[in-house]
Amino acid sequence: MRLKIAVLAGDGIGPEVTNEATHILKAVAELGGHDFTFVPLLIGGIAITEAGTPLPTATLDATLECDAALLGAVGDNKFNALSPDKRPEAGLLQIRQALGGFANLRPSIAYKALSASSPLLPEVTENVNILFVRELLGGLYFGEPRWWNKESDEAINTMRYTKAEVVRVARVAFELAAKRRGKVTSVDKANVLEVSQLWRATVTEVAKDYPSVTLEHQLVDSMAMHLMNIPRNFDVVLTENLFGDILSDEAGVITGSLGMLPSATLGGTVNLYEPVHGSAPDIAGTGKANPLGAILTAAMILRHSAGLEADAKAVEVAVHKVLDAGYRTSDIARGSAQTVSTQEMGKLVHQAL
Amino acid sequence: MRLKIAVLAGDGIGPEVTNEATHILKAVAELGGHDFTFVPLLIGGIAITEAGTPLPTATLDATLECDAALLGAVGDNKFNALSPDKRPEAGLLQIRQALGGFANLRPSIAYKALSASSPLLPEVTENVNILFVRELLGGLYFGEPRWWNKESDEAINTMRYTKAEVVRVARVAFELAAKRRGKVTSVDKANVLEVSQLWRATVTEVAKDYPSVTLEHQLVDSMAMHLMNIPRNFDVVLTENLFGDILSDEAGVITGSLGMLPSATLGGTVNLYEPVHGSAPDIAGTGKANPLGAILTAAMILRHSAGLEADAKAVEVAVHKVLDAGYRTSDIARGSAQTVSTQEMGKLVHQAL
Ligand SMILES: CC(C)[C@H](C(=O)O)[C@@H](O)C(=O)O
Ligand SMILES: CC(C)[C@H](C(=O)O)[C@@H](O)C(=O)O
Repeated sequence: MRLKIAVLAGDGIGPEVTNEATHILKAVAELGGHDFTFVPLLIGGIAITEAGTPLPTATLDATLECDAALLGAVGDNKFNALSPDKRPEAGLLQIRQALGGFANLRPSIAYKALSASSPLLPEVTENVNILFVRELLGGLYFGEPRWWNKESDEAINTMRYTKAEVVRVARVAFELAAKRRGKVTSVDKANVLEVSQLWRATVTEVAKDYPSVTLEHQLVDSMAMHLMNIPRNFDVVLTENLFGDILSDEAGVITGSLGMLPSATLGGTVNLYEPVHGSAPDIAGTGKANPLGAILTAAMILRHSAGLEADAKAVEVAVHKVLDAGYRTSDIARGSAQTVSTQEMGKLVHQAL
Repeated sequence: MRLKIAVLAGDGIGPEVTNEATHILKAVAELGGHDFTFVPLLIGGIAITEAGTPLPTATLDATLECDAALLGAVGDNKFNALSPDKRPEAGLLQIRQALGGFANLRPSIAYKALSASSPLLPEVTENVNILFVRELLGGLYFGEPRWWNKESDEAINTMRYTKAEVVRVARVAFELAAKRRGKVTSVDKANVLEVSQLWRATVTEVAKDYPSVTLEHQLVDSMAMHLMNIPRNFDVVLTENLFGDILSDEAGVITGSLGMLPSATLGGTVNLYEPVHGSAPDIAGTGKANPLGAILTAAMILRHSAGLEADAKAVEVAVHKVLDAGYRTSDIARGSAQTVSTQEMGKLVHQAL
């Protein structure tokens, strides 16, 4: 098995956690006799500093020649004064758009060993296993017109969806649900927004092709509440772009830390893999970052881009083992646990593999 | 003290809970020798059924002659197929706009007696007391253009804010924070949205007039997580319209039930008071509805429209007492508690008063 992986480490803790993830991928390649190559590329704040733009053409061109892209994190407070189109985050949004992946899969799983790290009661999080399918190329993130007019002191963003955009991401959600517990919860604000009415009608129509899957609709405000009250009720949660951004971060409290959450974006020319957490500039370089989100993201590469399901599982099992053995990075170290650094955590997973 | 209150009971559990709230207001009036009159008016689904439109002109005209408006809830599944501008919710949005109140205050308080009703750990919710200040007349709720074109299979909503709209609601948040614990957390998505950049810049500017208040900015996705992890960190939370809708419902899990949460909308011709919960058509008429959200909303009428701070406090203390005595409606009856009906709960608060 040959795989060429673009490594877009980015800013803050991005390089640290990406480093641990690539170590794990190398270990898997060695164990299985695979040929994985890694292509380091600039993106985000570091790309602004070194190449004058958050997504250099060289980065995009090289990524398009790879089989998968692993992104760390982008964002740096020193660029806070820039407008959205010039910030590190613009690099991320541009590469998402250029690679074309529209279905962002974000699993949110409760680990028994981590139940003490969650602010939720253990009986509430027990056995929770949610898969968010977040539409990643539409809505307010990319809608035009968008502007902030400093003369008229007014700003606008546009939430826009076409039926075709909803159909394709809904199909991904239903396909996945059919292989899981057979339920899709679609999130919208159909009592207020026209876009949500199109969303709801379209998802309802797509559901007809999947008679084995149950569809329910939830308003985004109620969903924000139910997700905490009865997370076990959810299997696949299908959302537009911004609602998915908000709800999948909220679901981080189920696992105990955003630092644990991986994601994979499918459906484009090159699949894009990124942990859900941000660049966390405040802890960059301190060894406090949790690499497990990035390592579990690497497992998703094995699953979705390499077709190595058994190896993906093996990495996930290794993560479980290390947590069961009591090792924690500081973000998940509530209570009495053995606190380890980013690197140590990476090594522990490697050993458990 | 004379007060004329428009009572817009609305749909589902709206009439039941509003009924208990007006009973309490009548009791307060009697005890204090005040003259409160109540003007029942149609809104929402019931108004569509009886008058052909979710906000009849007669309702609006009569409300504009009152000193305060108490709304129950709107929304009824039988109108789900209608477009946003024809649904029960349109009546609510129209009256919000017509009354002109732009600052929607939503307190989210952890009651010690209810800590077992929350999915959060007792030590996480302990002493939490957050006041959301949600902008209520801007953003995606009212932005034009908005449409769903069924020919082109495309839909659009517009998130729009002017600086003036942000300034006036920010001032309310800072004024309130100055009288509380002196902290404002402003929520936006400034790393992606131009509207949020205007929001952040404006709030930062307004903050200069309130040197005693600390301002922090949070991205909406992180906020959805922090709100569950460390709710005690927040005092006043300032948000645009949709972010406030989502986050204030999410904060319902701090109290244990949406059924407990009141709200007051200030700044317009007539202040509008409504519990945060919806019409809950599934439990309407079963006596299961929690009237405490509506009763606490009545307390906000006493505070903000009648200037009867002592009476407002008395109602809030009465609610505390009833909860401390172990009485619960079914939404908050986790564990062993004395479950009572909507009416019984209303009577218990009355007695405690
Ligand atoms: C960094 C930011 C642009 C990004 C987003 O909003 O999509 C992040 O929050 C995420 O969830 O991947
Ligand atoms: C019923 C609905 C239109 C309303 C809103 O979204 O504002 C409700 O959810 C609320 O929070 O008051």
